[in-house]
Amino acid sequence: MAGEEQFQRVDAPKLERLVSSIYAGLGVPADDAAFLGKALVDADLRGVHSHGCRWVSVYAESIRAGHYNLHPRITTVRDDGATCLLDGDSGLGHVLAAHAMDQAIDRAKKHGVGVVSLRNSQHIGALAYYSQMAADAGCLGYCTTNAGIGVVPPGGREKVIGLNPLSWAAPTRRPWSFNLDMATSVVAGSKLGIAVERNEKIPLGWAVDKDGNPTDDPRKGQEGGILPVGGPKGYGLSIMLDIMAGVLSGGRFGRGLGSEGSAQLYQAIDIEHFQPLDEFKDRMEELIAQIKGSALAPGSKGIFFPGEIEYNLKQDRLANGLPLDQFVRGELKKEAEAQGLPYDIER
Amino acid sequence: MAGEEQFQRVDAPKLERLVSSIYAGLGVPADDAAFLGKALVDADLRGVHSHGCRWVSVYAESIRAGHYNLHPRITTVRDDGATCLLDGDSGLGHVLAAHAMDQAIDRAKKHGVGVVSLRNSQHIGALAYYSQMAADAGCLGYCTTNAGIGVVPPGGREKVIGLNPLSWAAPTRRPWSFNLDMATSVVAGSKLGIAVERNEKIPLGWAVDKDGNPTDDPRKGQEGGILPVGGPKGYGLSIMLDIMAGVLSGGRFGRGLGSEGSAQLYQAIDIEHFQPLDEFKDRMEELIAQIKGSALAPGSKGIFFPGEIEYNLKQDRLANGLPLDQFVRGELKKEAEAQGLPYDIER
Repeated sequence: MAGEEQFQRVDAPKLERLVSSIYAGLGVPADDAAFLGKALVDADLRGVHSHGCRWVSVYAESIRAGHYNLHPRITTVRDDGATCLLDGDSGLGHVLAAHAMDQAIDRAKKHGVGVVSLRNSQHIGALAYYSQMAADAGCLGYCTTNAGIGVVPPGGREKVIGLNPLSWAAPTRRPWSFNLDMATSVVAGSKLGIAVERNEKIPLGWAVDKDGNPTDDPRKGQEGGILPVGGPKGYGLSIMLDIMAGVLSGGRFGRGLGSEGSAQLYQAIDIEHFQPLDEFKDRMEELIAQIKGSALAPGSKGIFFPGEIEYNLKQDRLANGLPLDQFVRGELKKEAEAQGLPYDIER
Repeated sequence: MAGEEQFQRVDAPKLERLVSSIYAGLGVPADDAAFLGKALVDADLRGVHSHGCRWVSVYAESIRAGHYNLHPRITTVRDDGATCLLDGDSGLGHVLAAHAMDQAIDRAKKHGVGVVSLRNSQHIGALAYYSQMAADAGCLGYCTTNAGIGVVPPGGREKVIGLNPLSWAAPTRRPWSFNLDMATSVVAGSKLGIAVERNEKIPLGWAVDKDGNPTDDPRKGQEGGILPVGGPKGYGLSIMLDIMAGVLSGGRFGRGLGSEGSAQLYQAIDIEHFQPLDEFKDRMEELIAQIKGSALAPGSKGIFFPGEIEYNLKQDRLANGLPLDQFVRGELKKEAEAQGLPYDIER
């Protein structure tokens, strides 16, 4: 696994331009390519490397293989004002997601709440980006997607539950918003991969082997499956997220999910339909002060709100460069060279 | 702590009548008293004793102390069709909750989604009851309430986070609905009390002592606080639930929550606004079959959906009687005798 020496700081704006150019060169319309660059780099800046530029070559490969419709006709299957059902026509997930959340926000501004169900979508990266769009617009933002199957249910020994995530965001008076973006599994699947590469054991409680027994061997955990966070709690949440994303939309759900294609739900609740936004932010400030101002545990570096650490990391990385590992830099260089684009992102 | 010998099976319909009569005798309007009986006994039938008839004497005491407004004027502070903001005027929580969820369902039927924010409410018992109302009406039901402060945030050593729960429900073709009702803490506060009574240790990871150090001593855990489920995940969820319930409604939130008074959010999404309910149930059936039909772990009794175990328990208890512990039976007897009501519930 990557040691510190394998990381190199790159310039975020240059990286964003490179990623956008790579996609534009593959035939992605200019605006969509620009948005992909922005969203993927944003994930890296926030420290969410699992959803950042490590995906550039994966999506590029899918585009070359014809798995994405670069000129999708997004259709409104049904429209009832506060709610609507969209078909994404297998377009680029990030682009569809932003479109769907824009719709949810518009509807919330008119009706108080907007719920947009999206089927025939694809991998949309970090959910925090879309819930944040709603928070930036003065709404409580929510979204969920169904995701690859990787979790074993309580009482079972087979992976039949998705690694389904949710994100909720809310505006504050701080430079950061409340932004929770979490999977319903104990850990991300990549954590097992890292332990395998490092030849380390994993804590009991992360995974079970293929016979359903607890294991501290990450290889056996990969054969078996990851456990849901909090047992029946994460298990129940994960199923509900698939009901909202997949079952309700008429799109793919459960084991019907392939490596390509997913479904999502986007929701915004407009705060001004309940109280003035300023008053809401005052109340948020009081809640933040109560929690962040409470006594620290021994050795604690502080109490942080969801989204706060990610914001701090982003500021640091915008100023001092974004550390990217050797693998991701190598992939980006390869994509750049294949298209004759300058690879000038390293600081 | 209660051993098996302290349990006695009672007749659920008789228990419901007794509870209703107790409240009617305390001045609660007949319909509301009947509903309280139904909702409290339903929680016990489903095995959720923490929200069942053990509360009868607690609420009765609060009524005698004048903490509840038995004839509340529920006001619609703002109404925008799909959303509305209600003030519960400190009425009985269960009654207000059912009223609010009825409103959410009505609005969902008209607009596709209904969001009802309720402030100046009280303790509403088990959330599953209200989300189930929405599922029974062909909706995805959701509700949350803020609750007493009892959880220590990651990095902290002080209880500043609520034991805030959420519930989500969805209809199925089975006799049971999907119904998840969970707190965002690792365990309910009552689990520490039970360990104290039994003089048992608690697992590390449930609680911290007052200095913020992990503890397996339930007494020290009570002095300190319970941990959120999944660390930052349960912590973030709990805060978001208070934002939705307390901050958005203009009601109490965070440490402002006293022993009396809380705020809630109720939401329904009408399935027919997205696809025919029959089609949705077909898809649910496919999801259920995938998950429940998957291979079992060694020694497993089966894979159960959220709400399924509770449904099975309810059927058994309706047929064979509902086990109530000595403490709860004693309290009911006392309340009955104080009002000259017959205590005839034991089988």
